Amino acid sequence: MKEIVAIGSIALDDVETPYGKRQGAVGGSLTYFSFAASLFAPVALVGVVGKDFPMEVLEALKKRGCDIRGVEIREGRSFRWAGKYIQGQEDPQTLKTELGLFAEFDPRPPEDYLKTRILYLGNLSPSLQRVLIRRIEHEISAMDTMNHWIESNRGELISLLQEVDILFINKKEAEMLSGQHGSFPSCQRLLEMGPKMVVVKRGEAGALLCSQEDQAVLPAFPVKKVVDPTGAGDSFAGGFLGALASGATPRRALATGIALSSFTVESFSVDRLSGVTGKEVEERLRILRELVSF
Amino acid sequence: MKEIVAIGSIALDDVETPYGKRQGAVGGSLTYFSFAASLFAPVALVGVVGKDFPMEVLEALKKRGCDIRGVEIREGRSFRWAGKYIQGQEDPQTLKTELGLFAEFDPRPPEDYLKTRILYLGNLSPSLQRVLIRRIEHEISAMDTMNHWIESNRGELISLLQEVDILFINKKEAEMLSGQHGSFPSCQRLLEMGPKMVVVKRGEAGALLCSQEDQAVLPAFPVKKVVDPTGAGDSFAGGFLGALASGATPRRALATGIALSSFTVESFSVDRLSGVTGKEVEERLRILRELVSF
Repeated sequence: MKEIVAIGSIALDDVETPYGKRQGAVGGSLTYFSFAASLFAPVALVGVVGKDFPMEVLEALKKRGCDIRGVEIREGRSFRWAGKYIQGQEDPQTLKTELGLFAEFDPRPPEDYLKTRILYLGNLSPSLQRVLIRRIEHEISAMDTMNHWIESNRGELISLLQEVDILFINKKEAEMLSGQHGSFPSCQRLLEMGPKMVVVKRGEAGALLCSQEDQAVLPAFPVKKVVDPTGAGDSFAGGFLGALASGATPRRALATGIALSSFTVESFSVDRLSGVTGKEVEERLRILRELVSF
Repeated sequence: MKEIVAIGSIALDDVETPYGKRQGAVGGSLTYFSFAASLFAPVALVGVVGKDFPMEVLEALKKRGCDIRGVEIREGRSFRWAGKYIQGQEDPQTLKTELGLFAEFDPRPPEDYLKTRILYLGNLSPSLQRVLIRRIEHEISAMDTMNHWIESNRGELISLLQEVDILFINKKEAEMLSGQHGSFPSCQRLLEMGPKMVVVKRGEAGALLCSQEDQAVLPAFPVKKVVDPTGAGDSFAGGFLGALASGATPRRALATGIALSSFTVESFSVDRLSGVTGKEVEERLRILRELVSF
């Protein structure tokens, strides 16, 4: 049985932020997720890339114990995204989205991926998420979503919430999907819609979780410079589920997700995230605990 | 010697929020501040109102142990503000600002106000704040400010920062005044500009403090409905300084400010705030501590 099976995008990003520019930087929800989660538990990746993707990144994940046999390498172009972050605006302007091979992404997990402790469905269409959640046997399922699916596939998404254990969602999308205002009311309403746990990500305001049994909220870890916010949410989910896989409580998982995303935003791409050590995470958890104590 | 001397506006507000409308509701920075702070320590108020102001509000403050002899009651109109909050936008649209008697506000604190443990200068012009900080003997001085003064009196404001102990400021204003991005870098930079402590208020994202010795951050208390955000920042400052006056640590004061502002936003005007008990504050502090623990 796998520890974590994760399915999502692997991409090349052109990113511009107030701190600089990067062309063709390694990105994608699955990439950020896997670098973060694999600090705690091996991830079996399911994705697709073109021959334009730097294979050493997949090799680096393999060295961290990840199983990359589920990443198809095909003729054609990888998913490419271009975006620009404006100082003071949380969301980037999307300048380009070229799905490339991801447009026809038909996940074919190897046989031994079909049973896992944790299944993570990155930002895919709700219909694809539903197929995967039913096909891959799991103890805990988790998913993310985005405004695009809330707008275009609302019904399907809502019905999927009945089948998933953990929903990761950002604040705006939580409000959009729940019809509530404010993170806590949205989180509570989404919890009533099916999942066992809802985790709302809210940038500098940190993140919160609601389950039947518990509620918790933590601010973001204070970084000196947010160089590039890309991948913060995916690293958060990776840190959260990685910690959960390694036996952490949901609260500790929440803190770990926050710590991991704080490394991601300190640099472009996975530059910082990919080098983070367990000791560095522990240190941020210690600081975070100290910051919120009174 | 007084415990807290506070100087600021006492106003009548026309407020519209997604939850309703109020005409001529009791408001003003000094009003919110005093209701919050007087739960912990008596406040000696310095302000001005017209005969149009409901005197029972001042009487209610007097019953809480406040000294209202410093509130001038004059012929003419009280400060009136009208604003509208749009769902999803943190800042209100200001529809009307009629300074009325506040335009010629010339604070004349009674003789026995001239020595205090804590001096709080609400949102006044930096030049008036400077006069008061020099005239009223104090152990701890604290001030708030706003975008208007940062834009129009920047130099004076920056020079005033050398003389004040605690600066309360919201996130946008902190970024504007410091030239930094993000709450923590802004808070740190402002600390270098003079104050012994800087407290950055950031709405749903809670608040943080930086001093030479310490850093702390807490999320906002999760309320079910933010009925009217007016006065949240002033109640926060009142709770913070009231707690400080009663011997709390700065971290505990931060949490208390957050608790007090959470009551304020649950209703229009001071409807909820004015009835809050010490026991209710304790209960929110307990919940807040539980929410952030991991």
